Amino acid sequence: MTEKMTLSAARYFDSEPRQLEIASRLYSLVATAPLVCPHGHVDPRMFADPDYQFGSPADLLLIPDHYIFRMLYSQGMPLESLGIPRLDGGPVETDHRKIWQIFADHFHLFRGTPTGMWLAHELQDVFGVSEKLNGRNAQAVYDQIEASLKLPEFRPRRLFERFRIEILATTDAAADRLEHHRAIRESGWGGRVVPTFRPDGVVNIDRPDWKQNLIELGEVCGYEISSYVHLIRALEERRAFFKEMGATATDHAALTPLTVELSDAEAETIFERALRGTATESEAARFTGHLLMENARMSIEDGLVMQFHPGSYRNHNQVIFEHFGYDKGCDIPVAVDFTRGLRPLLNRYGNDPRLTLILFTLDETTYSRELAPLAGHYPAVRLGPAWWFHDSLNGMRRYRDQALETAGLYNTTGFNDDTRAFPSIPARHDLARRADADWIASLVVRGIVDMEDAEEMIHDTAYRLAKKAYKFD
Amino acid sequence: MTEKMTLSAARYFDSEPRQLEIASRLYSLVATAPLVCPHGHVDPRMFADPDYQFGSPADLLLIPDHYIFRMLYSQGMPLESLGIPRLDGGPVETDHRKIWQIFADHFHLFRGTPTGMWLAHELQDVFGVSEKLNGRNAQAVYDQIEASLKLPEFRPRRLFERFRIEILATTDAAADRLEHHRAIRESGWGGRVVPTFRPDGVVNIDRPDWKQNLIELGEVCGYEISSYVHLIRALEERRAFFKEMGATATDHAALTPLTVELSDAEAETIFERALRGTATESEAARFTGHLLMENARMSIEDGLVMQFHPGSYRNHNQVIFEHFGYDKGCDIPVAVDFTRGLRPLLNRYGNDPRLTLILFTLDETTYSRELAPLAGHYPAVRLGPAWWFHDSLNGMRRYRDQALETAGLYNTTGFNDDTRAFPSIPARHDLARRADADWIASLVVRGIVDMEDAEEMIHDTAYRLAKKAYKFD
Amino acid sequence: MTEKMTLSAARYFDSEPRQLEIASRLYSLVATAPLVCPHGHVDPRMFADPDYQFGSPADLLLIPDHYIFRMLYSQGMPLESLGIPRLDGGPVETDHRKIWQIFADHFHLFRGTPTGMWLAHELQDVFGVSEKLNGRNAQAVYDQIEASLKLPEFRPRRLFERFRIEILATTDAAADRLEHHRAIRESGWGGRVVPTFRPDGVVNIDRPDWKQNLIELGEVCGYEISSYVHLIRALEERRAFFKEMGATATDHAALTPLTVELSDAEAETIFERALRGTATESEAARFTGHLLMENARMSIEDGLVMQFHPGSYRNHNQVIFEHFGYDKGCDIPVAVDFTRGLRPLLNRYGNDPRLTLILFTLDETTYSRELAPLAGHYPAVRLGPAWWFHDSLNGMRRYRDQALETAGLYNTTGFNDDTRAFPSIPARHDLARRADADWIASLVVRGIVDMEDAEEMIHDTAYRLAKKAYKFD
Repeated sequence: MTEKMTLSAARYFDSEPRQLEIASRLYSLVATAPLVCPHGHVDPRMFADPDYQFGSPADLLLIPDHYIFRMLYSQGMPLESLGIPRLDGGPVETDHRKIWQIFADHFHLFRGTPTGMWLAHELQDVFGVSEKLNGRNAQAVYDQIEASLKLPEFRPRRLFERFRIEILATTDAAADRLEHHRAIRESGWGGRVVPTFRPDGVVNIDRPDWKQNLIELGEVCGYEISSYVHLIRALEERRAFFKEMGATATDHAALTPLTVELSDAEAETIFERALRGTATESEAARFTGHLLMENARMSIEDGLVMQFHPGSYRNHNQVIFEHFGYDKGCDIPVAVDFTRGLRPLLNRYGNDPRLTLILFTLDETTYSRELAPLAGHYPAVRLGPAWWFHDSLNGMRRYRDQALETAGLYNTTGFNDDTRAFPSIPARHDLARRADADWIASLVVRGIVDMEDAEEMIHDTAYRLAKKAYKFD
Repeated sequence: MTEKMTLSAARYFDSEPRQLEIASRLYSLVATAPLVCPHGHVDPRMFADPDYQFGSPADLLLIPDHYIFRMLYSQGMPLESLGIPRLDGGPVETDHRKIWQIFADHFHLFRGTPTGMWLAHELQDVFGVSEKLNGRNAQAVYDQIEASLKLPEFRPRRLFERFRIEILATTDAAADRLEHHRAIRESGWGGRVVPTFRPDGVVNIDRPDWKQNLIELGEVCGYEISSYVHLIRALEERRAFFKEMGATATDHAALTPLTVELSDAEAETIFERALRGTATESEAARFTGHLLMENARMSIEDGLVMQFHPGSYRNHNQVIFEHFGYDKGCDIPVAVDFTRGLRPLLNRYGNDPRLTLILFTLDETTYSRELAPLAGHYPAVRLGPAWWFHDSLNGMRRYRDQALETAGLYNTTGFNDDTRAFPSIPARHDLARRADADWIASLVVRGIVDMEDAEEMIHDTAYRLAKKAYKFD
Repeated sequence: MTEKMTLSAARYFDSEPRQLEIASRLYSLVATAPLVCPHGHVDPRMFADPDYQFGSPADLLLIPDHYIFRMLYSQGMPLESLGIPRLDGGPVETDHRKIWQIFADHFHLFRGTPTGMWLAHELQDVFGVSEKLNGRNAQAVYDQIEASLKLPEFRPRRLFERFRIEILATTDAAADRLEHHRAIRESGWGGRVVPTFRPDGVVNIDRPDWKQNLIELGEVCGYEISSYVHLIRALEERRAFFKEMGATATDHAALTPLTVELSDAEAETIFERALRGTATESEAARFTGHLLMENARMSIEDGLVMQFHPGSYRNHNQVIFEHFGYDKGCDIPVAVDFTRGLRPLLNRYGNDPRLTLILFTLDETTYSRELAPLAGHYPAVRLGPAWWFHDSLNGMRRYRDQALETAGLYNTTGFNDDTRAFPSIPARHDLARRADADWIASLVVRGIVDMEDAEEMIHDTAYRLAKKAYKFD
């Protein structure tokens, strides 16, 4: 039995009729508003070449998406069987129809998950698939997607326009030469794709690839990064270059939100110990914490918005990391302490309205306990949207429930899709807009805000907050 | 465009018709019940003088309320522009109409916040303002409030009566001579205003003002507090005095819930080191933890209810603290461990039903994990209401959701307003009563309690639990 | 006034009519499905003797149930007055009608608690009591239950069949000879009652009864457990015996989720220090953490499912522990760190699909932060249901809300009742099935899953997930 897909027009809304009606009304105001995508991981290469073509359906939808293959892996399917490339070049499944079949056979695993919701939207709205995916229709659906991908209207630039993307920020390493961004600019195409400066690879000295990253940074800068002083100089130069190339923001990850101000001498000593491979875990954390403060200082100087998202224990599964590398669905969150951790940075720079520091968390306990009070006080602090595992209907509800009464809506920054899955972008924004409309409607029916305010708020959450926070003018 | 305020009669209730009807019915039973205010920060001075007059609208509603000015500050408005006095006496805005205008221009920042809800209620019900505040009507609203404040019915005692306050507890330092409380008593006025004994200033030896507080305590006691033994004696004397003046409770803050029993010798040693300024952070924490146990002992002896609310990192923003002092909206919560922290105190005194220990938290993760299990077991422990940042519609919902199944309603203590904003008191109690009615109605419609139980419960939450827990007879 | 009990047919469902209708429909599909009880504490003795009779109503319903007497104790009733036996044999109330009267007089304490909901169901459905319990009808209700218990249909085996229990797992110490389980098997009765291997008493070397437990283990093994090597051998032998007796699972508790791999020499050293009483707290934690890894290894070898539930600070109330012993309602949860704690075990064994590791938590913050990401990645990890204090309507809602979007339904293990209160089993499963039906219905009305999926899901949550996870074939 196959079943028609039924993406309800009122999906994700509370079913109580009054709230449903108001949510629908609010949603209709922004359903087709342009998409502002200030934080994500789409590969800019696909926009640099006007004739870029996506690969197979598995290439496009499964193999790069760790949200999907982590779930299949958790149920016992080897990553090799899903076509995930091994670092050692060992054999993995190359028959993309087989991979697709495994996925379709197990599509029930995604019931109730955001991935399932995005995929349902994407299959229907982007690819025109009219049935719920299952093992029986897997190959027919594959055929349909494969055929679509050959059409000119499925070139990335065409989809970018069809999706009504107003601006798309990518995430790029400090040493990135931004050649694709340059090519996009020089091509005369009107799509706005901007880089984001992410220096983790060169400031987190405990990364396995740190020295290699330093070498690449040295090559692009034209001098060896042989000291802390060189590193600071290189960061400042690269920030200036990124800004020139359209960047409005930087992006920073760390295991903990620790910030600390080191003397130049201490920073230099740790840097040297790291070069020799003798820096301790605590020194690495302090160095990262110091570099966060240095980047805040630079942000005040150059105006780039600073994003910070600590709390992910990267590559928790050593076996998978060794065989498959980074970003394979095995980053697991830990509890964090923003209150004590950020105090040095905030006492030094947090009262300066020239700084915009957008904070993200995977530890939801910090919403009400730490982040909302911080965002509701410090002029520099803004609260980013529900992130990663929490970029979901329930995750967004918890975020709004726990953060907004204290932080206030206007210390938040709207939605971002944070995705490398380009065709999922409309689905993700749509889900967020529906969730916001539902939330604002719940305030209306409870007499907390009136319709005048509600209409302002839905425009803010869907579009204006992100544009303002990221200084997209 | 100005818009009529529409404080709906059914505001804050779930909109599902059956639940809404039951919530309305339950609310109506307690909508005009007397207010029991067992914990707050209203200045008793305003009731000591029958002719006391509030200052300007800004004096009354904005300048003392850090809930309001922290939000404006977070959006870049300097505290000076809001008339907040600087410690150095430096210039701040003195034109209260200008301050009011800034506030009104940014009233949208409070959309969906408890402060916004309280203000809407207060403006309409206390001051008769019939429009939603905005930049255009700001001065007209100011005029209307200013005119009201000149009327005899806006004297504090008259408002106290109009608000149907049955009892109002203030919060007072250990050295306070309670002269205003005495004046109230001797005036023959029937309003019941009682002090609460809060010794933090003399037991938290790491406070910047600790030595000054000791001196003041010595002056009121008539002997110098030069040793730990003197401190204990002084505390016992002051508790007795407060009790004589009507107090039924004490109130204690600390960064962590650590309790520990020191020997007299160890306590004396730390006290002496603190006097010399050489006590460590850990010694300060241990001393505070020991004093908590001493106060529990005293509570068993004198019957004063003990309130404890750890977990706020006070004066997180050093810059603001240095320029503006305490209570400026920059206290930020931290995670706490009640389970291990309170064990010494509870093992020593927690099985004694003569002790009532009311616990508050800003770390909501402790509701279900620690506080509800503790309150649902130890005879001495009661769980205070959702506190501070969590004194809000969502905060109360989380509290009831996470704590009450395990703690049981009867190990909780009803509502308290915890406010220094006197005219907001009815709005705060009203919001709590509506939230409770909505919660109890949700139990009725789900078949968890029947209407007989529901009616008992709403009387308990609105009035009886607080009276009983705080021993107001 | 007495009031008829009104256990509504639609109880626990959301009252919005569309959702209510769908929830009722889904519930009806599983309302009478067999009960799978993979984790609990029912005494197998009651099924070994076909003529076993329960004692008095207080014996059956109150005295063994720490959920009930902790609540009464928290409100000041001494455990002695409730008939809880003292370790020193000191006097306690022996008049069970008096105990019942105290309970009935205070039945309002259970308003809105899961215990109250289970009791209401149990009194009505198991014992046919048609009134809400209160002080006035207490003795009449006692009479009715007492009379029931004398009837043949209230023998445990008859109730087992009436309750439609398909399989019931008990929890048994490593040294248990499983004589009751053997008697059940040999009796020819068709009820399936299987043991679960719980070695905490011999692997948690900091337990007060550890040495006594070792002695008993030695006796059943036929050799003295005088070394770590003997302990490992004994565990392997006992696991084999339990498996032979029908066990499909083991069960492990610890204060923290720390796992660590010790060398044999280090393990031996700590064991010897523990025998001499000189092992430190940290050594005890490391030993327990090592034994967890050893048990995971054994699980891969023998196929027994491994359950792990850390985070309860056992016997928090030393006074009660000394006078009344274990399991007296004074175990209080603490915060835990699964991400770092389990990493050694998961890196060693977590990628092996032969291992099933079912995790439980009392620290709900770990649902979204740690457990769902772990379960949604590692092939070995499954997430157990909302546990202990969280086995409640709200607790289950939080669990589904916070864990399922990331973990996926199919990395969870259905419901278990975890109870020693045999007659409460149907009430507990019924509440869980209703809660699941309500949750799935909420997904349907929001357009997240269709009815085809919803019907699969309710069968999964009510029956299939538990059977599969615990390898009951």
